[in-house]
Order: sequence, then C-alpha cells, then structure tokens
Amino acid sequence: DYIKGRVEKSGVRKWVRFNTPVRMVTYSDETKKFTVTAHDRTNDVTYSEEFDNVVVASGHFSVPNVPYFEGFSTFNGRILHSHDFRDAMEFKGKDILIIGRSYSAEDIGSQCYKYGAKSITTSYRSKPMGFKWPENWKEVPLLEKVVGKTAHFKDGTTKDVDAIILCTGYLHSFPFLTDDLKLKTANRMWPLDLYEGVVWEKNPKLFYIGMQDQFYTFNMFDAQAWYARDVIMGRIKLPSAEAMAEHSAKWRAREETLEDAEQMIWFQGDYTKELMDQTDYPGFDVEAVNHTFMEWEHHKMENIMTFRDNAYRSLMTGTMAPVHHTPWLQALDDSMESYLEVKGVAAE
Amino acid sequence: DYIKGRVEKSGVRKWVRFNTPVRMVTYSDETKKFTVTAHDRTNDVTYSEEFDNVVVASGHFSVPNVPYFEGFSTFNGRILHSHDFRDAMEFKGKDILIIGRSYSAEDIGSQCYKYGAKSITTSYRSKPMGFKWPENWKEVPLLEKVVGKTAHFKDGTTKDVDAIILCTGYLHSFPFLTDDLKLKTANRMWPLDLYEGVVWEKNPKLFYIGMQDQFYTFNMFDAQAWYARDVIMGRIKLPSAEAMAEHSAKWRAREETLEDAEQMIWFQGDYTKELMDQTDYPGFDVEAVNHTFMEWEHHKMENIMTFRDNAYRSLMTGTMAPVHHTPWLQALDDSMESYLEVKGVAAE
Repeated sequence: DYIKGRVEKSGVRKWVRFNTPVRMVTYSDETKKFTVTAHDRTNDVTYSEEFDNVVVASGHFSVPNVPYFEGFSTFNGRILHSHDFRDAMEFKGKDILIIGRSYSAEDIGSQCYKYGAKSITTSYRSKPMGFKWPENWKEVPLLEKVVGKTAHFKDGTTKDVDAIILCTGYLHSFPFLTDDLKLKTANRMWPLDLYEGVVWEKNPKLFYIGMQDQFYTFNMFDAQAWYARDVIMGRIKLPSAEAMAEHSAKWRAREETLEDAEQMIWFQGDYTKELMDQTDYPGFDVEAVNHTFMEWEHHKMENIMTFRDNAYRSLMTGTMAPVHHTPWLQALDDSMESYLEVKGVAAE
Repeated sequence: DYIKGRVEKSGVRKWVRFNTPVRMVTYSDETKKFTVTAHDRTNDVTYSEEFDNVVVASGHFSVPNVPYFEGFSTFNGRILHSHDFRDAMEFKGKDILIIGRSYSAEDIGSQCYKYGAKSITTSYRSKPMGFKWPENWKEVPLLEKVVGKTAHFKDGTTKDVDAIILCTGYLHSFPFLTDDLKLKTANRMWPLDLYEGVVWEKNPKLFYIGMQDQFYTFNMFDAQAWYARDVIMGRIKLPSAEAMAEHSAKWRAREETLEDAEQMIWFQGDYTKELMDQTDYPGFDVEAVNHTFMEWEHHKMENIMTFRDNAYRSLMTGTMAPVHHTPWLQALDDSMESYLEVKGVAAE
C-alpha cells in the first residue's frame, strides 16, 4: 500500500514496465550509452533500447544461497530454502531443523513454533542467536551430515528431524550485467566499488540502489535514489576515480570494526545521514530512529516470542502506533482482513 | 553412464564448459557472426565470444508452467510443481491432489501410491488418463478452487487434500536469445519455423536440437545432431526459405491429424527416419522400435502398476534385457546400489 501510494502520487506508474525482465545490459565506449535488452513476457517480445544512465535496483534477496551437506540426497523428508517457505501449517507436529542464525532462521523458526511444530533445532556456523527460546527450541553447532532422518552436528549431538529449512541467505546476482558493470560482493554493510554506496566507480553512469545489508530500508533507498538523481542531473559533481575509491575505503575500514547489531545500526544511520545532507531529501531524526532500533533489539532480547507485540512512535508523523488487537503468539489468522481488524470491529 | 561414456569415447569432454550458462546470443548482419555472452560461475567472470554457428540444445523441460487456482494463496499445505518433486516418502499417509494427466502426473502419482500416500486424486483438463488405477486413486475433472484444505472440481465433487502437485508441464524458454533467433512454441510434435525440425528457417546458421515433444529421445537427438552437423559442414544443401517453410507446413499438417500416442509414435519414427536417410547416422529398425513402443503402451494399459516389470529386447544389440530383480511395487530402495544388484548379489 505504501509503495503503491507513492508510485501513484508521484505519477511514475506510466514509466514502469511490469513482467519485463532485463536480459542484458552492455555499455559502449564509442557511443557512451547503455544498450538494455528486455523481455516483454506478456507479449513474448524481446527488444533493445539505448540509455544514458542505468540504475540497478533489483535487490539481493531473491537468489538463494544453497549449501549442500552430506546425506541430503538420501534424506527422506523435505529440504527447502527459506525462499520457498510459504506456510508454517505444513510443519505442525514435526521436528524441524533450521540451518542459519539470521533473520530468516529466527522468524521462520518462530512461525513454526507458533503453528505447533513439535520441535525446532537451529544450527549455527559462527555463534548462537542467544535469544530466550521456548522449551522445544534448541540451538546447536553446524550440521555435519544427515544419515536417514538423523542430523549429526559438529559437537557430536544428533537429532531426528522431519524437514530441513536452509536459512542460509542470498546471493547478489546480476545475470543481466557484463563484467565491467557487475557488482560482486557478499551481503555486508559496505560493498566496495560503490561511491557513496551508490555510484559504480568504474563507470559513474551506472548506479546501484539498496545493495547493502540492511537495517535502514526505505529511508536509505530513498536517500540513495535522491543522490543518484542529483548525480544524473549534474547537481552533484563526482570527484576523481581515485578520490571515490579512497572515500569508499574509509567507510569499509569503519565497517570492518563493527561488532554487533547496535554498531551496525549507527553505521548505517550515519551513512544515510551523509546522503541526506548532500540532497534535498526531507530530513528525519536519524538518531531517534537509531534509538528506536535499539528499543526493538532490546525487546527481542527480553522475549523473542513477544517482541512483536510492542508498538513504536513514528518519527515522521509523531503518531504512536496502536498496540495490535491480538498478541502475535495467539494471532493464528494471517489474513489481511484479520490483521487490519480494529479491536474486534472489522475494518470497512 | 551412457552419456558420460559417449562424451569420453568421442573426446568432446574438453569442449564442454560446465557451470557456464549462456546469458545472451545476438547475431550481426554485418559480420554474419553470433556473439555469445556466457557467465563462468566458477570464476564469476562474464565474457563474450564470436561463433559462425550456434546450436541450441538446452531442452524444454526445466522452466515449469505454473497455473494459479483460486484459494492457492490460503491453502494450508504444500503446493509444488512436479519439477520440485524429490521424494515420495514426504507424502506417506497423506491425501494428494495432482493437477495434470501426462507422464509426470502418472509417474509421480504412482510413486506416491507406492510409498504409502493415503489417497491420490488426479485432476484433468481434457480427459482422464484411463489406466486401471488402484482403489485409492481417483481421476476427476479440472480443479475449480480450493477452500481451506478442500478441493472443488468442475463436476461439483470435493476432496480434502494435504498437498497439491502441479504436473502441468513446462515452457520452451530461451531467455538468452533475441527475438530474431527465438523459437516460440508450445510443447508439441511439430513446432514450426524449424526446417527438418532442426534448422532455424529465419537464419539457417542457427540450429535447435530436441525441441519436439518426445517419444523418441536420444535416437532422435542424434539424428538431429548428425543433420545439423552436415548442414554446417556443407554436406547438406538447404533449399530456399520458401521451400523450407513449405516442407515444415506439410509435417505440421500431418501432426494436426494425430489422434493418439500410437499415431504420434509412428509420426516421430517417420521423422527420425527422414533425418537418418539424409546422413550417415548408423541406421536402426525404426519400425521395430515403434512396435516396442506399442508393446510398452499396451503393458501400461494392462496394468499401470506392473508395466515397469516388463523387459524389452534392444533393437541395436539384439540383447534381451533381464527382468529386474524386484517388482517395481516392492522395490522401495531407490539407491543405485540396490537398483544395480544382480539377483541378490551386489554388483562389483
């Protein structure tokens, strides 16, 4: 609704071509232009067009990173990546093994718990998530192998499981870009080669939006979009390639000192502020947003099964969000109608 | 093993680049050459090369055709395409709904039956498969909608199901081809625009192998490859574009008269023979192969759960295949070791 509203308000709907994946982007040193080849799936027509600038905003949470563990090929149950997770009801009464320790692991595990999974085992590579989990939820070291339905972990313990959910993240994937244009990075707070996290240093006519690992989302994307727009319009002058690389290296150096989520939030807040200060993006109180993130993190540490029941104040409008009509753990109807109901009275 | 053996024997292994999807193929009218852009995933390098000819042999059973039915978004169970089916054990004790009436529906349904699904319901659009199904297997008209776990069919009947498997086929998909080079067809016995089912009529430097719906598989692919090779080598001269289109139209006209599997088998046998007659492909007795197909079809009609237990004589070597050590319905260990065991004695 928020995105649709903004698209309509700004009148950009007419510039969007849905169901039209880009198949290839090339840059010509002669014409100084990009050739974009796209596939209009609706009419099954593939065509090419030239552009002065290209902005890559295709996200980086859609191509799954799928590790293989010994015994997967003979496991007698479902193995899926979190990308393919649709409904926790399927796992009711089952023993679930989750590989991973980030948001997907935490969230999908919690959904399975809520809808009645018999047990949840989360297996981590680096360190446990460390939340206060319910009785039937255990954190164990990395999976070593699966024998039949028995999972063996690096600490020598085992657990019989019915399904395995790989919450193992995503890959930055740009199959439509040639090498001279392609960002290559793991999912982290400061990918290199992007000046101000946005401008492709090797060819500053190309821009990337939202390629960082994220605490800030739409605010940051907006600030990045404002910045890219101003570079394209000539309002912001870029420094030399060397100066751009040097600037990026400084951010990367700070990124490498970050130790926990709180520090990452401050880092990304500072970055977003740096972008806003250079454009006419309507400012907001970054420090207050950071503090709201902290509050949320603390609620998670207090109780991982009730933190969703808290409400926060909007730092844009000052409005305090109402507390939801039903505690999350008791809210079993996921439909929009049920979610939007106000205190037992159905919304119009 | 068969494919690996042939690759090694012919010494083409060194020409194969694994893990290197082609991202784009374009043709230049000026240079009369193709530019192929490929992505070496192992080294994450994208590069382009020029070629005089291109052969598209990327298959057409990998991009699923996924229909949507009302209620799918609120169904509380797993919905998957046959492409994602891995193991029937997951469906033991469950009520399974299968959409479709072709090989995947028949085969996946049979696997689920064998491994203990509680019931199998197959839903057809055109007509039932008509085999003699077991007690707990029903054929019903097309699905209309799903309400909760209840499937509603066009004849007004309903069935509560735990999982839905879409055996709804595949799409011919060539995201790496520009429109002037791209075959656009449904899955059928005679796609148009391919002279002799192989040569791209609009640009005869481009070839397609195996794009037909198939009874014949490797024999036909081979005959097509021999034909494409001979055109490339100049041993076969192509007629005019008009003559090619006319020839294709004749085959299409015959294709449109085909009424059942038997007629399709004879059609594809005749086509394969036409290719073999024009090349030095080592011939084989097409008529006898057709008769073996008929025998196999009759075994299926006799008993859909035992037809796999029959053995057939090779028409290449004359060798009669041994009957398998265990009837298919009792063979629950799918491993290669178990499959290759000879009369209770493990193979070397």
